[in-house]
Amino acid sequence: MGRWEPNAAGRLREAAMDLYLEQGFEQTTVAEIAARAGLTARTFFRYFTDKREVLFGGAELLHERLVRALEDAPADATPIEAVAAALTAIAELLVDREFSGRRQQVIDANAELRERELIKMATLSAALTDGLRTRGVRDSDARLAGEAGIAVFRVAFDRWVRSKDDRMLAQVVNEALSQLRTLVAAS
Amino acid sequence: MGRWEPNAAGRLREAAMDLYLEQGFEQTTVAEIAARAGLTARTFFRYFTDKREVLFGGAELLHERLVRALEDAPADATPIEAVAAALTAIAELLVDREFSGRRQQVIDANAELRERELIKMATLSAALTDGLRTRGVRDSDARLAGEAGIAVFRVAFDRWVRSKDDRMLAQVVNEALSQLRTLVAAS
Repeated sequence: MGRWEPNAAGRLREAAMDLYLEQGFEQTTVAEIAARAGLTARTFFRYFTDKREVLFGGAELLHERLVRALEDAPADATPIEAVAAALTAIAELLVDREFSGRRQQVIDANAELRERELIKMATLSAALTDGLRTRGVRDSDARLAGEAGIAVFRVAFDRWVRSKDDRMLAQVVNEALSQLRTLVAAS
Repeated sequence: MGRWEPNAAGRLREAAMDLYLEQGFEQTTVAEIAARAGLTARTFFRYFTDKREVLFGGAELLHERLVRALEDAPADATPIEAVAAALTAIAELLVDREFSGRRQQVIDANAELRERELIKMATLSAALTDGLRTRGVRDSDARLAGEAGIAVFRVAFDRWVRSKDDRMLAQVVNEALSQLRTLVAAS
């Protein structure tokens, strides 16, 4: 049972994304994803609980890295420097721009998935706020830096998946943070 | 048919909020809301399409005011000054802090309502971005200012409903914008 399949999770992810884009997320079954990847539904369920988890399965890892980056930031880092470290850490997990872009197209095309993505972002924002509080940042700064940080991340992510050059997401995130500084200073 | 009832919409809103807090949003029926307000279900449906609209019916007005404030802001206002004008305009619609606070408690207690509120905020953020673009703000600044502006508004709103003093929401919003400026400058 269950012979080892090289890169089964990656193949399933690519097959799922192809099908979600071709025929819609709703219309796609786990059996079709497995067949497209040349694998069985049984193998699919070894990696994902359902077809939605193919899109959102990475959220826990993002959360862990974000929390750890806040813990590891220098004690004298300002709140925004700590936010920058946290956003850089999660940006470094997202290295496959083409895959991220296709995933985003799938999400944009489906109201339920867009809601799920909003919830995921709200959860990351709360984690950022909590992590800042743990660092001793006062509550009102922590909440504002957490919300603004995730706002910057969302904008940078969209920019990155649409960009044509070879910049890494982490770089785009840090540029967007600088841009926010310029914007809010100009008033 | 349909004799005029003084402040029927307001009485229905208060009755709905009482019941949502006492027994939960899911468990409350339109018939109960109308009865608590001393009105009929028929009257309820003259003002609201369903029990969820009691909570979200104001969204269109917020949207309209936001758009108009962006149109009316001075031509030489910076993007963030235009955002401040838009957020101030919508803040000025929210004058009943106790009602807003109770509404927020109802929403916080129900996952479906929290999602709905996230969508409402994402829609406002998109409207802010679009309105800035219409003012001639370049796309990348518009998106960032839109997302950051709504982040500030959310934080300020939470702060305001929890506050004990008599400040208006508009003031809390403008303080939060200044606070963001201080935060992002410190890096």
